[in-house]
Amino acid sequence: MKPHNREVVLTAKPEGPATVHCFGERASDMAEPADGEVLLRNVYLSCDPHLRQEMDSDRPLPRPVSSRVVGLVERSRHPDFLPGDVAWGQGRWELFSVCPGPALTKVDPAIGPISHAISVRGMPGLTAYVAMTDVGRPAAGETVLVSAAAGAVGSLAGQFAKLAGARVVGMVGSDAKADHVVRRLGFDGAVNYRAGGTLSEAVRAACPAGVDVYFDCVGGEALETALAASNLRARFVLCGMIASYDGRPAAGVRNLMQAVTSAVTMTGFRVSMHKHRLPSYAAMAAELLAADRVRYTEDIREGLSAAPAAFIGMLHGDNIGKRLIRVSEDPYLRQG
Amino acid sequence: MKPHNREVVLTAKPEGPATVHCFGERASDMAEPADGEVLLRNVYLSCDPHLRQEMDSDRPLPRPVSSRVVGLVERSRHPDFLPGDVAWGQGRWELFSVCPGPALTKVDPAIGPISHAISVRGMPGLTAYVAMTDVGRPAAGETVLVSAAAGAVGSLAGQFAKLAGARVVGMVGSDAKADHVVRRLGFDGAVNYRAGGTLSEAVRAACPAGVDVYFDCVGGEALETALAASNLRARFVLCGMIASYDGRPAAGVRNLMQAVTSAVTMTGFRVSMHKHRLPSYAAMAAELLAADRVRYTEDIREGLSAAPAAFIGMLHGDNIGKRLIRVSEDPYLRQG
Repeated sequence: MKPHNREVVLTAKPEGPATVHCFGERASDMAEPADGEVLLRNVYLSCDPHLRQEMDSDRPLPRPVSSRVVGLVERSRHPDFLPGDVAWGQGRWELFSVCPGPALTKVDPAIGPISHAISVRGMPGLTAYVAMTDVGRPAAGETVLVSAAAGAVGSLAGQFAKLAGARVVGMVGSDAKADHVVRRLGFDGAVNYRAGGTLSEAVRAACPAGVDVYFDCVGGEALETALAASNLRARFVLCGMIASYDGRPAAGVRNLMQAVTSAVTMTGFRVSMHKHRLPSYAAMAAELLAADRVRYTEDIREGLSAAPAAFIGMLHGDNIGKRLIRVSEDPYLRQG
Repeated sequence: MKPHNREVVLTAKPEGPATVHCFGERASDMAEPADGEVLLRNVYLSCDPHLRQEMDSDRPLPRPVSSRVVGLVERSRHPDFLPGDVAWGQGRWELFSVCPGPALTKVDPAIGPISHAISVRGMPGLTAYVAMTDVGRPAAGETVLVSAAAGAVGSLAGQFAKLAGARVVGMVGSDAKADHVVRRLGFDGAVNYRAGGTLSEAVRAACPAGVDVYFDCVGGEALETALAASNLRARFVLCGMIASYDGRPAAGVRNLMQAVTSAVTMTGFRVSMHKHRLPSYAAMAAELLAADRVRYTEDIREGLSAAPAAFIGMLHGDNIGKRLIRVSEDPYLRQG
């Protein structure tokens, strides 16, 4: 029997920064769904920063890359799914994934792009919404600083802060991203941390009233800078520390005393603890998108083989918005 | 007119660790209270770690050492205070302080040692109580790790956690302190961070179920160790960072990603924001002390001139319990 599936796998543990040479590709037989399972033809795969941490694991190689996927039901042995249905769930970086039916969620392609099920209407969106709205809790007129502001989560977190009436400043890694978050997403300001000069001075200048809420996906110097600018009772939401993911020694945060002085609350955030809120969030996000009250950009690369380089590039910040890989035709794609 | 007052002042900004040579003594005229003011004969002065940070200020030298004091009213031009009354407030390291009447609080010497007004029944006690009870919120059976556990605040914080039914482990700097917190204060365990060996292993061994609440007055390696041992939804209360006070470069905390992974909430705590709760706290503390449900140790040095060395020694951890300086006779002292 000929192989029908192709898969990107991890083949080496990175020493230092990850490279495409840590990945390989292999052909495999198309798996047959067992009772209760569904065979999905993947359309979009997710590129998530936390994969970089998984790469440092010592589990046997080669091993698959676990990833959220959205795709079309090819064969189903679960009563809730019929061939042709769109669904998302936890799959792998491969052309076809077999998933337990109960772990899949049906996607209505009439609502919007099906890719949104794993981006703005999915867990990255839920992260931005709950972390900003419930944990950061910006009040009207407060200043919100968002790190990785052009990224999959930060770009939305800032917009949810805007909806709450806050003044929002994004930290980004290029002038193009600064332009994107201000002109396209409506942020009040942006600081390019690669522009040269002192980051803390640039943040001070962009946040003259200090920082009331800081949304952190970066850690390290970005977090230190936000602490140095924090107002009394500031809320810091810690969603990730990408500054220390890619084989870089974790940058020590040296000014935590500022958290005492300013009575800052720093809350580590795991979206998995809030997954039950995804359905209501997704419905709300769809409405906000339809009303153009929230905007979302996806940065899509083509083809399974592009996944490793797309992932590495994202670690270095070459994406604007959510990085996805399209591995097969999207029949619902609206022609721009 | 002859000088009647003596005062310890700051004479030099430390370069590196503070020494007694950063302090001097001067004689001064006894100040006359103006209308609304009270002249206090100081009995006890407080030694507080945060003075070390104040020493790094660039304000003109020599300058006074601000400190909580408890003493006897010598002369009063405020209707609420009569000569002989006991009162506490913000004074200086000196024999006599002039204070605005409204900034003083009367102390009833029948309740217990008058020194308690600036230790266990005062702001250090309030810090321990509110930070542990309201912010740390240990539940019965949870594990609470307390840094600087033999100190003025940690020793009480651990006992409040015990009253909540938690299992309490103290981090201390000597075997004598370990003995003190376990035998005298009823902690369930203690880790001597100066015992040699790996601190994180010792904490792991003392907290086999992980850490649910961490009470931090230290920062640096202690905080890193607690993060590494933290359970899901752990609460960290950050009250101080003495590890970085004494001219030591602030130790960077490198594993904040653990706060994301374990969804830890780290709350910077400023007791000044809770000062309105002092009266009710003080009444409760008096009852707990009287019933021997809470124990408190004061580490008292004699004489104004002893203050600088007593303070420096405390920075190096030579105290057990709250370090105070007795600068004049305490008429209410019960003979042990």
